[in-house]
Amino acid sequence: MAQATLTITSKNYSSWSLRGWLMAKLAGLPFDEKIIPPDDPAMRAEILLLAPSVRVPALSHDGVTVWDTLAIGEYLNEVRPEAGLLPASRAARAHCRAICGEMHSGFASLRSALPMNIKGHFPNFKIWERARADIERIAAIWEECLAVYGGPYLFGDKPCIADAMYAPVATRFLTYDVKLSRICTAYCATIMAMPAMIEWVDAARAEPDDIDELDMEF
Amino acid sequence: MAQATLTITSKNYSSWSLRGWLMAKLAGLPFDEKIIPPDDPAMRAEILLLAPSVRVPALSHDGVTVWDTLAIGEYLNEVRPEAGLLPASRAARAHCRAICGEMHSGFASLRSALPMNIKGHFPNFKIWERARADIERIAAIWEECLAVYGGPYLFGDKPCIADAMYAPVATRFLTYDVKLSRICTAYCATIMAMPAMIEWVDAARAEPDDIDELDMEF
Repeated sequence: MAQATLTITSKNYSSWSLRGWLMAKLAGLPFDEKIIPPDDPAMRAEILLLAPSVRVPALSHDGVTVWDTLAIGEYLNEVRPEAGLLPASRAARAHCRAICGEMHSGFASLRSALPMNIKGHFPNFKIWERARADIERIAAIWEECLAVYGGPYLFGDKPCIADAMYAPVATRFLTYDVKLSRICTAYCATIMAMPAMIEWVDAARAEPDDIDELDMEF
Repeated sequence: MAQATLTITSKNYSSWSLRGWLMAKLAGLPFDEKIIPPDDPAMRAEILLLAPSVRVPALSHDGVTVWDTLAIGEYLNEVRPEAGLLPASRAARAHCRAICGEMHSGFASLRSALPMNIKGHFPNFKIWERARADIERIAAIWEECLAVYGGPYLFGDKPCIADAMYAPVATRFLTYDVKLSRICTAYCATIMAMPAMIEWVDAARAEPDDIDELDMEF
């Protein structure tokens, strides 16, 4: 048994689970996964955007249980500072936290109109105007970071919590066939080629389809 | 001129402005206020919950501009560690960040149904079910913190970023006449009695009413 446990739900549908899981992988903290089944009422409500959940993702480690994705990221940075989950310079760290905060509290239109669905693929998906505005802001964030810090990740040559925060967006852009600039397309490819991301996507594709009925409840 | 500038908008209506402003006060960082007028189109959109804003609150200090309230809190904690913006113990710090994260990304029903309006007072305001669920979760968060850390603030005998995050909620509970437990009522009184809070509320009450027409646009 690993020294930590990460509670998550669907690998195909839960973008918050993916963020927390990637952060733990980037931190190099060995952990066991505890997967809450999709028929859990609280989980259904969370996936259907009906209620917030304080249960996924949640990390238990060293007697501490921490929930909320950003709080998990900050906790992991404290216990594994050598992993570089946050940029080394104060200014870059502030920038990183600012764009993580935008993802954490914003982009509601993108989240509701283009929910994460790694197994899905919808060519020529119609994107309504508000979601389009979210996409434009995300592209601007990515392009600024890649220009300022030199890429291939948002804050330079290794992934940090910002890449984990935006990784589900990269999957959505592929799922919904979103047209992007060359720079943003390359960044999505960088994210999808991360070993941890490949591991997650393989698990998402292998996930049983019994959660798919949730789609019927909207 | 102070060494820092905090960009905010309405003191009566902008809950995010209040959070960032309180954090800067708690940090003891001298700052000038830059107030964006309510007729600024981007500000109108933000106050009307139509679009996220990356401009308020925003802190400029020492060559760094940081936006997003949680990122501002973490930045202030880095530059003024002696202010104790985050609890000293790792476990309490993780708990603090988790409940700050819940406020940051959640409680959408509370935010839309009971918007901050310090000048307003609506006795017997009808609270619909989803906002009620948000209120119950917030009460549970407060009561747990006050029991575990002993009050009168959420994490003990001095205010921290969690109190700043939930301070606008205390004003909403007063504005909309929300019935609370004795413990939560006392906590609201503690928040409203903070010197910085009294200063903010006085300024909100003195704010010109020209922003009030925004209400008509829902």
